[in-house]
Amino acid sequence: MPAAFKTLPAPPGLPEPLPEPAVADLRLEEVMGALSSSLRLTIVRKLLLESEEFDHSCHWFGLDRPKSSLTHHFKALREAGVTRQRQYGLERRSQVRIDDLNARFPGLLDLVAAWTPQP
Amino acid sequence: MPAAFKTLPAPPGLPEPLPEPAVADLRLEEVMGALSSSLRLTIVRKLLLESEEFDHSCHWFGLDRPKSSLTHHFKALREAGVTRQRQYGLERRSQVRIDDLNARFPGLLDLVAAWTPQP
Repeated sequence: MPAAFKTLPAPPGLPEPLPEPAVADLRLEEVMGALSSSLRLTIVRKLLLESEEFDHSCHWFGLDRPKSSLTHHFKALREAGVTRQRQYGLERRSQVRIDDLNARFPGLLDLVAAWTPQP
Repeated sequence: MPAAFKTLPAPPGLPEPLPEPAVADLRLEEVMGALSSSLRLTIVRKLLLESEEFDHSCHWFGLDRPKSSLTHHFKALREAGVTRQRQYGLERRSQVRIDDLNARFPGLLDLVAAWTPQP
């Protein structure tokens, strides 16, 4: 049975999502590629298990990487269809496309939630 | 419930497996990386669903790629722990590490079996 992941209610005045693949166009090879990095697994896992808001900016994750590198990784996750990003002024925030991924790739997010970084 | 994949009995005089990660050392990010290519998904899916022998050489797959490219892809699958390769004389044959992957990443192989190449 799939785990219940943390989802929080949408705030009012939500911006439109940035461009992303439709759920029918999600490709397993692209999703796997997006999840083939421990940094990106860390991002998705933290969103799944620790979200405190509807979506989160890169600052929330506390990742020790240059902003340009983080921007690249968050974009890769969105373009593969793993996350949805919205632009709030100067800031982009991400959430996991839980329903879409569960519909197309059942069990995939459970594997991400169960993942632990290499010690 | 995990699907039952095709496994065939081991022939006598089986060579030792080529170097591979132990089941406890399998890393989700490495496995995802190995499965982030439609060619490698094709290989693993065919082994899961259509195996006719214990393991198969690259010729069996009927892939229209140069041998050096195929050698690279089969090696990438083995080094990530997705497949086990054995050397039979001049030929290497591969099988999927079904039990190991089901133990560490339940449901992953079902996603591969359900995958279809982009039309």
